[in-house]
Parts: sequence; structure tokens; C-alpha cells
Amino acid sequence: MLGGIEAGGTKFVCAVGDEFGTIIDQIRIPTTLPEETIQQVIAFFKQYDIKAMGIGSFGPIDINQESPTYGNITSTPKHGWRDFPLVHSLKDAFSIPMGFHTDVNVAALGEAALGAAKGLDSCLYITVGTGIGAGAMIQGKLLQGLSHPEMGHILVRRHPNDPYQGKCPYHHDCLEGLASGPAIEDRWGEKGENLVNKEEVWDLEGYYIAQALMQYILILSPKKIILGGGVPHQQKVFTSIYKYLNVLMQQYVSLPKLSEYIVSPGLGDAAGITGALILANRTLKEY
Amino acid sequence: MLGGIEAGGTKFVCAVGDEFGTIIDQIRIPTTLPEETIQQVIAFFKQYDIKAMGIGSFGPIDINQESPTYGNITSTPKHGWRDFPLVHSLKDAFSIPMGFHTDVNVAALGEAALGAAKGLDSCLYITVGTGIGAGAMIQGKLLQGLSHPEMGHILVRRHPNDPYQGKCPYHHDCLEGLASGPAIEDRWGEKGENLVNKEEVWDLEGYYIAQALMQYILILSPKKIILGGGVPHQQKVFTSIYKYLNVLMQQYVSLPKLSEYIVSPGLGDAAGITGALILANRTLKEY
Repeated sequence: MLGGIEAGGTKFVCAVGDEFGTIIDQIRIPTTLPEETIQQVIAFFKQYDIKAMGIGSFGPIDINQESPTYGNITSTPKHGWRDFPLVHSLKDAFSIPMGFHTDVNVAALGEAALGAAKGLDSCLYITVGTGIGAGAMIQGKLLQGLSHPEMGHILVRRHPNDPYQGKCPYHHDCLEGLASGPAIEDRWGEKGENLVNKEEVWDLEGYYIAQALMQYILILSPKKIILGGGVPHQQKVFTSIYKYLNVLMQQYVSLPKLSEYIVSPGLGDAAGITGALILANRTLKEY
Repeated sequence: MLGGIEAGGTKFVCAVGDEFGTIIDQIRIPTTLPEETIQQVIAFFKQYDIKAMGIGSFGPIDINQESPTYGNITSTPKHGWRDFPLVHSLKDAFSIPMGFHTDVNVAALGEAALGAAKGLDSCLYITVGTGIGAGAMIQGKLLQGLSHPEMGHILVRRHPNDPYQGKCPYHHDCLEGLASGPAIEDRWGEKGENLVNKEEVWDLEGYYIAQALMQYILILSPKKIILGGGVPHQQKVFTSIYKYLNVLMQQYVSLPKLSEYIVSPGLGDAAGITGALILANRTLKEY
């Protein structure tokens, strides 16, 4: 039996399942204070005989295995979680192999194993919701280097008719600053779910996301792009992305048909937790 | 003995050397018409008993080993070279293992093996000259996916005081369109080498290159960035890059001291040809 955790800022999804990513049991635990949340996580997994664990976490996190703070959540503004040793606190309870990556990298792994990128050794997973983040699998490996990517904060060009100053506390008008869910609400004065019929909202979303995808494509050349999160539930966003991306790219690189290349998650909301089980299995094999 | 080729639009550098990247003999052959150039390349290598070959080529190229056109130079405007089967024509003469990648990916490999990123499993190599291109080694592998990266054509934000429309025939004011050597000459009316004392030239170069590096860092998180090519021979470009990158990043991610993180090639102009020998050795081992 394998364990998987999708550790988010509002909830921890915990699951046990098999090496094929099939979920046997799962639970959602609210993210309150670390000690309280972790205690419930441990109680859930203690019911089972798990051989390895995979964890996809909100960030920023330390994924450098040589670092003394490996496995920690680092500079998050979330109360109580700054510098919290997530992996360490789980290792105290379970002396088993544990894989640890960003939530979006783990979702990319899930989609590559069983979702929209099934069978591919390369895909990019981007989520556009409360924040914007992206992870990638490249040549079969989850992308990392000096640290994990922070793709949600790349620069985009502001639309000439968009006066909104941007919501990112660091960069103001980076991608996340201009195109996240809170940026939509701040710009238009209403939540996105109340703006469904306002075409210009989704057109502008596509304008910014297309720019980001162009950068990801030119830099990473992923074999498939999976667009998850709350905002792309408005399917109009996809139409707008295809339109603007075609204009931006000018056919400079040869891409598959965009409607087959940039798609919704094959696993829906289960990409992350499924990826966590797959990561557990990978970690066990490498051990 | 191993063979290496750095195949460029103006010259082919060919070398024989050992598995440590030490060059024993080398030659420069002008890039004329493919048949003529390749004949001379073959004649050079025929003098030696080579076991494997590594090739870093100008592009775009087909590096997908499953493709029927693998090993070809594809849509280049260079007369005679469009769709030229580079690897195939060398395989006809030498029935040995051959590795084939972009010139910039191979330069990244050289720098990771013996240059400024020695000992690291991750680095990015960017060249700013006649064109702008970048390659990367990520977790020990040369970056590829659907195809090879085309990092020189990413979007940047135009400087508010820069009216220059840009030189890229595809995107006009992408990075290459605004910051390549020909863009400098076109914008300022003189070649860069005659503009050494014009501070604003190099300040503006840094303004654009810093934006590109920000995108590369946020997306790839390389452990070292190596900046080669003719333009950065003006050391002022580095100073400008550090200045603008600090402003852009707002310390959002933790980076090493920039003067140690973004550096000149440790191998100078030999990064590419050295990387080609290292690639030959890797290919031989995998065979």
C-alpha cells in the first residue's frame, strides 16, 4: 500500500492506493495549524501498512536533498507554516521512503502517468486559480534545479487597454499579478463565477495565459500542456488562449493542433493526489 | 579517439579528442554548400580512428530520434541547408554512434563538464551574438521535449524609451529581435564594436537580457547561467544585467550572488567544441 498527500493551503488531501495510482481510501483534512493538521494526517495513514509516501506540497518548499532544511515549507505567508519541517514531521511517524515535490510538479506526474499526457515523458501542468503555478516533467523527471520552478511569476506584457496595476505583492503585474482569480476579482469588482457572460474577462485571461504558454513552450518544449485550476473552468479561456497563442507564435515552431496540445486535466481534480501515489511508487523503486 | 563537430552557419569546427574533452587536433571549415562542407568534414575525420561523434548544430534541427527526419537541419533560411540530412550524411561515412543536439545545448554540456558549471548537473548557456539562443542541462540531461528549446524568441517588455521596432522576421520585438547583434547595429546605426563607450547601448542590452534570464530562472531554475557570444564581450552588459535582474526579481527567489551565478563561459569560445567531444563520449557509453 502506498500513501499520497496533496498538501494545500486550505486542505490536505490524503490517500492510500496502489502502484497504479488507484485510490483505495482518502480523506480531506483542513489546513489549520501545522501540528494539528499533521496529527490528523498521521492518524489517517496509521490505519494502513504503507510502504512509501509521495507528497505534493504548496510552496515555496525546499526540495534540495542535500540541504539541511530539505522537506520544509519555507517562506510562505501562511500563519504557522513558515519553515515547517513537513517531511521531517512525517518521517518521525513513518520510517519509510518519501518523495517530496511541489503540488504542480506532482500533478504533472499524475497527468503523465494516467491523465491527459499518459504515456508521454514530458508535459507541463499549469494551474490558474487563487495563485498561478506550473510544474513539469521533462524527459521523465520532475523539473528541478537550484530550486523548484516558480513559473507563475514570469513577466507578461500588459494589454494596452488594461489599466489594472496587478496583485502580486512582489512584482505587481507578473502573470499571477494580472491573471489569478484574485486579480480577476480585483480588476472587475466581482468574482469570476459572477462574470461568466462578460466576454472581455475571459478574452483578457487568454491574452495573458497565452503569453505565459509561449514562454513555457519556447523554453521547455513540453509534449503536452495541461491547464487546470478554477479559472479555466470557463472554457472560453481555452478559445482565447488558442487565438492569442497563434498570433504570438507566428508559426515559428511547429506545434500540434492547439486544441489537442493545450487541454484540461485528464484526471480532473485528482491529478495531484494521483500524482502523489505515483511519486510514492517511484520513490520506493529508487530506494 | 572521439570526434566533435560544432556546426555553425559560418564555419564548422571539427575536433578529435579524448573522453575528457581534451582536443588533440582541430580544423575550421567554412560553411558553404552542404555537400562541399561535409566532404571536408569527412576528410578531416577519416585521418583518425574515431569511435563516436558528437555534433552541436545550428538550427532548427530535428532531434527527435523517433522521427524519420531525425538528424536533419530543418527550416533554416541558409541557402542549401534546408532539410539537409546532417547526421545521415555523416553516418554514411562513419558507421559509429553519433550524438546530435543544438549548438547551445552542446555548449551547456561542455560548460557543465569542464567549464563554469563544472560538477553541476544543471546549467543554462545563452549566447547573444548574430542571433540569440540558449540551451540547458537539467538534472544531467540536455533539455528537449517536443523539440529543442527556442529560448531566443521569448517575449520581453520593450523599454519605454526604446522606439526600435525589432529585427525578428517572425515576432519583431522578441528578445532576439531587440537584443541581438544585428538589432544593436540596426537600432544605433553602428556595429556594437564601434559603440563601446556609448553607455546606453549596454544598459539597454542588460535591460532585455535580464528579463530573459528572469524567465529562464523562474521556469528552469538552473544552477548556473553562462552568458556567451559576441555581445557580452562588453563586460558592461553583465553589470547592467545584475542591476535590472535585482529590480525585476524583488528577491522573490533566493539566488546566489549574481556575479557568481551569471558568468562568462569557463571554456571561452571552446565551450561548443568541447561539449561536442563530451557528447560523443556520452553517446558511446549509452550505445
